[in-house]
Amino acid sequence: MSSAPMLVTVDPLKPAAEQAGLMNRWHPDIPAFATVKQGQMFRIGCHEWTGGQIKNSDDSDDVANVDLTRIHYLSGPIGVEGAEPGDAVCVEILNIEHYDSMPWGYTGVFEKEDGGLFASRFNTKAAKAIWDFHGRFTESRHIPGVKFAGITHPGIIGSMCSQELLDDWNKREQELIDKHPGASPAVALAPEPKNAYVGQDLPKEVMDKIAREGARTVPGREHGGNCDIKNLSIGSRVWLPVYVPGANIAVGDLHFSQGDLELSFCGAIEMAGVITLRCSVVKDGMKKLCMNQPIFQPSPIDPNYTDQLVFEGLSVDLHDASGKTIQGSMDATLAAKQAALNTMEYLCNLGYTAEQVHLLLSAAPIDVHLAALVDVPNACATLALPTKIFDRDITPNGMGPDGFEKRDYGQAAIRSDGQRAVDIFAEKRERQEKASKAKQ
Amino acid sequence: MSSAPMLVTVDPLKPAAEQAGLMNRWHPDIPAFATVKQGQMFRIGCHEWTGGQIKNSDDSDDVANVDLTRIHYLSGPIGVEGAEPGDAVCVEILNIEHYDSMPWGYTGVFEKEDGGLFASRFNTKAAKAIWDFHGRFTESRHIPGVKFAGITHPGIIGSMCSQELLDDWNKREQELIDKHPGASPAVALAPEPKNAYVGQDLPKEVMDKIAREGARTVPGREHGGNCDIKNLSIGSRVWLPVYVPGANIAVGDLHFSQGDLELSFCGAIEMAGVITLRCSVVKDGMKKLCMNQPIFQPSPIDPNYTDQLVFEGLSVDLHDASGKTIQGSMDATLAAKQAALNTMEYLCNLGYTAEQVHLLLSAAPIDVHLAALVDVPNACATLALPTKIFDRDITPNGMGPDGFEKRDYGQAAIRSDGQRAVDIFAEKRERQEKASKAKQ
Amino acid sequence: MSSAPMLVTVDPLKPAAEQAGLMNRWHPDIPAFATVKQGQMFRIGCHEWTGGQIKNSDDSDDVANVDLTRIHYLSGPIGVEGAEPGDAVCVEILNIEHYDSMPWGYTGVFEKEDGGLFASRFNTKAAKAIWDFHGRFTESRHIPGVKFAGITHPGIIGSMCSQELLDDWNKREQELIDKHPGASPAVALAPEPKNAYVGQDLPKEVMDKIAREGARTVPGREHGGNCDIKNLSIGSRVWLPVYVPGANIAVGDLHFSQGDLELSFCGAIEMAGVITLRCSVVKDGMKKLCMNQPIFQPSPIDPNYTDQLVFEGLSVDLHDASGKTIQGSMDATLAAKQAALNTMEYLCNLGYTAEQVHLLLSAAPIDVHLAALVDVPNACATLALPTKIFDRDITPNGMGPDGFEKRDYGQAAIRSDGQRAVDIFAEKRERQEKASKAKQ
Amino acid sequence: MSSAPMLVTVDPLKPAAEQAGLMNRWHPDIPAFATVKQGQMFRIGCHEWTGGQIKNSDDSDDVANVDLTRIHYLSGPIGVEGAEPGDAVCVEILNIEHYDSMPWGYTGVFEKEDGGLFASRFNTKAAKAIWDFHGRFTESRHIPGVKFAGITHPGIIGSMCSQELLDDWNKREQELIDKHPGASPAVALAPEPKNAYVGQDLPKEVMDKIAREGARTVPGREHGGNCDIKNLSIGSRVWLPVYVPGANIAVGDLHFSQGDLELSFCGAIEMAGVITLRCSVVKDGMKKLCMNQPIFQPSPIDPNYTDQLVFEGLSVDLHDASGKTIQGSMDATLAAKQAALNTMEYLCNLGYTAEQVHLLLSAAPIDVHLAALVDVPNACATLALPTKIFDRDITPNGMGPDGFEKRDYGQAAIRSDGQRAVDIFAEKRERQEKASKAKQ
Repeated sequence: MSSAPMLVTVDPLKPAAEQAGLMNRWHPDIPAFATVKQGQMFRIGCHEWTGGQIKNSDDSDDVANVDLTRIHYLSGPIGVEGAEPGDAVCVEILNIEHYDSMPWGYTGVFEKEDGGLFASRFNTKAAKAIWDFHGRFTESRHIPGVKFAGITHPGIIGSMCSQELLDDWNKREQELIDKHPGASPAVALAPEPKNAYVGQDLPKEVMDKIAREGARTVPGREHGGNCDIKNLSIGSRVWLPVYVPGANIAVGDLHFSQGDLELSFCGAIEMAGVITLRCSVVKDGMKKLCMNQPIFQPSPIDPNYTDQLVFEGLSVDLHDASGKTIQGSMDATLAAKQAALNTMEYLCNLGYTAEQVHLLLSAAPIDVHLAALVDVPNACATLALPTKIFDRDITPNGMGPDGFEKRDYGQAAIRSDGQRAVDIFAEKRERQEKASKAKQ
Repeated sequence: MSSAPMLVTVDPLKPAAEQAGLMNRWHPDIPAFATVKQGQMFRIGCHEWTGGQIKNSDDSDDVANVDLTRIHYLSGPIGVEGAEPGDAVCVEILNIEHYDSMPWGYTGVFEKEDGGLFASRFNTKAAKAIWDFHGRFTESRHIPGVKFAGITHPGIIGSMCSQELLDDWNKREQELIDKHPGASPAVALAPEPKNAYVGQDLPKEVMDKIAREGARTVPGREHGGNCDIKNLSIGSRVWLPVYVPGANIAVGDLHFSQGDLELSFCGAIEMAGVITLRCSVVKDGMKKLCMNQPIFQPSPIDPNYTDQLVFEGLSVDLHDASGKTIQGSMDATLAAKQAALNTMEYLCNLGYTAEQVHLLLSAAPIDVHLAALVDVPNACATLALPTKIFDRDITPNGMGPDGFEKRDYGQAAIRSDGQRAVDIFAEKRERQEKASKAKQ
Repeated sequence: MSSAPMLVTVDPLKPAAEQAGLMNRWHPDIPAFATVKQGQMFRIGCHEWTGGQIKNSDDSDDVANVDLTRIHYLSGPIGVEGAEPGDAVCVEILNIEHYDSMPWGYTGVFEKEDGGLFASRFNTKAAKAIWDFHGRFTESRHIPGVKFAGITHPGIIGSMCSQELLDDWNKREQELIDKHPGASPAVALAPEPKNAYVGQDLPKEVMDKIAREGARTVPGREHGGNCDIKNLSIGSRVWLPVYVPGANIAVGDLHFSQGDLELSFCGAIEMAGVITLRCSVVKDGMKKLCMNQPIFQPSPIDPNYTDQLVFEGLSVDLHDASGKTIQGSMDATLAAKQAALNTMEYLCNLGYTAEQVHLLLSAAPIDVHLAALVDVPNACATLALPTKIFDRDITPNGMGPDGFEKRDYGQAAIRSDGQRAVDIFAEKRERQEKASKAKQ
Repeated sequence: MSSAPMLVTVDPLKPAAEQAGLMNRWHPDIPAFATVKQGQMFRIGCHEWTGGQIKNSDDSDDVANVDLTRIHYLSGPIGVEGAEPGDAVCVEILNIEHYDSMPWGYTGVFEKEDGGLFASRFNTKAAKAIWDFHGRFTESRHIPGVKFAGITHPGIIGSMCSQELLDDWNKREQELIDKHPGASPAVALAPEPKNAYVGQDLPKEVMDKIAREGARTVPGREHGGNCDIKNLSIGSRVWLPVYVPGANIAVGDLHFSQGDLELSFCGAIEMAGVITLRCSVVKDGMKKLCMNQPIFQPSPIDPNYTDQLVFEGLSVDLHDASGKTIQGSMDATLAAKQAALNTMEYLCNLGYTAEQVHLLLSAAPIDVHLAALVDVPNACATLALPTKIFDRDITPNGMGPDGFEKRDYGQAAIRSDGQRAVDIFAEKRERQEKASKAKQ
């Protein structure tokens, strides 16, 4: 009759690195912070991914100055009674709610060196949108004319690695780093003792080992982790592989919403909140289910935005700074980027700024499909934009005789010094106008 | 009151290269074979993509011996009155029906040198599944236990390129070929006079120019073309850019169904049939809609298989022949391949052969999303498998206490000499059993 | 490899009453016209429900003069091998296609005495809309501005009654007729020898018995029959109870589309065509499934018009001719009628005529739910109108500052003498304007 | 940046009749309890519909002894700035959340004299199911084997009536009562001073007038009110007619879930909670939108249970106590009841008790459509049962060779004296067995 117990209690307005039950490394020596029975419903408080560094403000200086060694404070680990290596743990995601003290989230574009799909192409500068949570929906004063329902999910959910698996991760990622010396943004992140955190009292030598070896939380890996899958949302049910006794799952990096690709770095609507879960164990599940990585059943309550406008993209760069089309070779990443750029250019034509569309496509529930990876040399991706999230008809049917009405939508939160990323769409328009004049 | 006129008449049981109104190159000197008014509904017969080389039989020798210079006989071009360069043509896809004389289609895995997403990894050998069309549904004697509705679409639909655009295509693709001398499968296909075909009476010098310069039909490009987008299906509405007077659209390579990725070469259910279309023109549409490539609105009648089981994939190769996990770097193609391999391994565990699952995932309406391309070094893709297409419960709920019941599903059509691709899942099982014994 | 056999061949341009394999009565003495094996796919030609009395024309005189003793020429009966009384037959509806010779259908409002939900209230006069089939979509020159996908289904599908069941039907329906002497429209239809038809050579005494006793095809009954369920559509699978050896199913009255309620008499888009079916038998299925009536699983390919505008209706008459609100008592029929009238009035305000909206709501895929039957005295029904079938935004968002733009949509096909039904919405507007003036 | 203000504060564990901002009558003399600006998001606490009379227990004595003069304590009225008679108020339903102190709800079957669709047929006795809220999902210890997402909505939302409208309501409902003297259950409820409640300090003569004249909250009427429409749920947007300055809307009777029909009295999952709303005004909206009653746009986040098993029902009573089939005349209520009874009988065959299926169909998100109201004498209704809410396959595919496995699901909470309603399905089985023996 009582509510589900709260196993990790978080105050989203206080720094994460002072709070118990949080952790920002994956390491088998981190003991379970709490243990649950199978079938027991429980709740876990989660900080937002930067642990409180970003403010509800109208400039992006906090994003520009973020300390990326202090991120991904996950909640846990939570042990599950009866789970043993080789089993699978089935986790039901029953709810995610924001804190009353923080009824908002944010999407960010980070500085170029921090990464993101378009970091280099745009020479990105910090930009931000604050999203107010209006019940199950969200709106942003920084991107007017848009409202959508949350497809709320944990960006990170995973089980604890074994020492053997951890060692493999560290080895293979270091090899990659070694192949790309001085890469910016970095191609992978090695273990980093600085600001490694486990919110439990551990012997110094244990904590040192964790700090020295612990896997960084940025990428998803075989155990789940930071997969940023928007449809692993409230109402879904995920099977995680078990590598250590008790499975020791951890969760965090909650997203009120996210688009496929998460195309900016910090591309979801980041939020603090409470997640409600329930676990059961499938004995010998890794073998029975041939599991190499998590498997999940999506939710019956994902928002149902069936009316979409779809933009195609191929592995041919139509948006290169040179104004030339550059031929790629069966590159799905490039195809997806082209579909995104085509969409952004289309939306800028309605009056949104380049920063706004970059943030919007990161945050809104867009679907990016890999349509075909077979027709050499061009991979084909599609980006489906839900039309009902806009307060006007953005489809071609919504044009007047002279094209779309261009509205003034203001601007996202940008750096207080006014620095902005390259507006490649404006550059393109200029090129085209020049070419058009030259012809006359 | 009468039916829509048939602008191209095709006999699917006769070779394509003898029939009028077909063509297998893109070139601006190909004149319109027929012209339509805006708003007029019309029908076009289409040959299947190999022009009749594949038979309804129980071996795959026809696939092994296919002549790939005789493919993609598109129907058209069809001129649209009033369309001029810079406009957009809106094409409604109103219907696609198979011929009474050919109530079946096929999916193929081609020999390694012909390509496909897994050509090298599997060292693919020809395999085939014949699909019988049962009204709006299909079933295959080569993959029992499966039935699904068609998400029927043209693999190829596009407008005619201008000479300027054609020249750009040829230049950039030749540069790519030059960078990969001797690649197998080829990275791109240069113009090829052999078997170039236009089913109209043209002066010899015009036909020679077309044969010499004409763009091959394999990849999609800015004008549309062979995009193989499964959701550009019956009921959708696509805006194509216009480069030549009349737009001169062509269409073909009909698919009764296809999965995202089209993961084998010839990965859809290839069919001959009749497509019903209707066109209108948006004056100056390329500029008004900021079109770099086609844009479309998907259909309200795509099959609604909402119940799915989803497999994750990262840019880490878990299925390498060495048995080691190989770290990639933000490679969406690799992530998608991993999701597909995880799915295949899962389905083989139910009793299907490696050939069957390869063919099935190519043909069935699977959704492949790019979940996130931001978490270095691991891109994340997901593959959503519709569960209702199977006649048993393939979700983890469908397991017994000892795992899934393994059924005998027979085999796909394979080469009559018995040669098969590498079964990497069997190899993996052997490795694992060996490792397990070594431990004891 | 061959197509499914055609068990009943129909020419839709010839009168039904001359063609073999048709029948317009339910009677156990009608023998199977053809027999199928379980699992065998087969096709059946079907005449449109009036057997060819309605023309593709621009007046409704054919509707006004229809002979209602010559309707519902069903195709069959088809015996299913192995089916015995007490079993259930599972029928898969795999496809429905129109004839090339008749690429159109129609919706009718009949004269008052023929019936329909609003026959008395509107004092209905014949009206008609011709719908052209554009592939999987339809449009009508009599109701411009509307296009929708077919949710194509047989209005009638049923198994043959036993003599015992037939006797019960005749007895109970005669009792109802006897209770309402002289009712117009009739409350039920007794057996009627005139124009009773079975397209097989039968001994005269058998045919006489059938004509004398045979159940009329108008209502649905325990065996299925004329249920007019729009979602029993292509792709669904229905279990029918079996009362006679072989089940002897019959099918007809094809509808390209229909709204819930089928609110005019002849309220669907009536069509001739070919239906593709496949049957299997569940032994002792009536008991195992507790079947009193058919059960079905709906289709994965029903059109997906999720964007809707919903109108409420209660068992209070707000549209009475007197201008007064009349209180009903928990009357779901009245509630549904009110929801329909509220919708019609709304659409008339956009410029459609009363005839057009009556026909449109009959034909388009509207959903009518019974929301609640518990809150005395008012039953509550809702009518959900798909918004995407219109070429303009009909939601309140589509209004200008002065309300909706009123367009000229022409008129439906009406009687050549110009007689029309009562326009109760015009009457209401007049009453309101009079009242408004009286106040000033 | 702050959360939405809470305009009515409710303690769900204290009696409603002591709390401010609640009311259980509709009357124009009730002043606005609070006023909001257009576009302002706000929250309102709501008591559960009996104001706290039902307990989280395992018998139904509280339901048997409920005091039905103390129900429907609505929250409000809330005035909307700028709304005037003749306008429409657009209300967005942004969220509904339960209280932490009451993480459960209940469904009830009431005693026969209290009503419900099957009150007389079953001679209903009190029964109850307690539903625990597990995030966005619910489960009941009284109906095991079932889990579903909430389609959460206010059973009651409406604007305040004018005196003129109120007088009309009272007049027409009294006339109905007068026509059915002594009816049990009552056909309608006249104004009732006993326990009339307005949680504001009002002059005695005002309160007396309200108590004497105020409309009871049981039925829905032109202004909205108790419509119990399950799809008027979180995420929908409803236009209400305005009859008094400020519109003065009130809301309550929250339902975590409900099936169409709400087929038992107290047929939803009744809950206390907080609703989040936002309002805007359409000037002269009643005329512009031809509004006779509320209009709404349904939500993009309603649960998406597309896999359904559908039961047909006709206006022929197949479940009469006599065992005879009784012919009705175009009676939609009877048709809906038959569809419900067919479904109940089917589910009892899986092992559920009659009480459990009665409660389950009331609470779960079933869809009840009126398929056709045209085929004399039989109206046709369909009941679509979502199959994915069960933890087993309840479709015919889930049967074994001898039919369904009958499981022991325990029992709902029933009266502590053990009295139960008539189990008409058991009666039917007995009749059938007797008949079957008689034949032998």
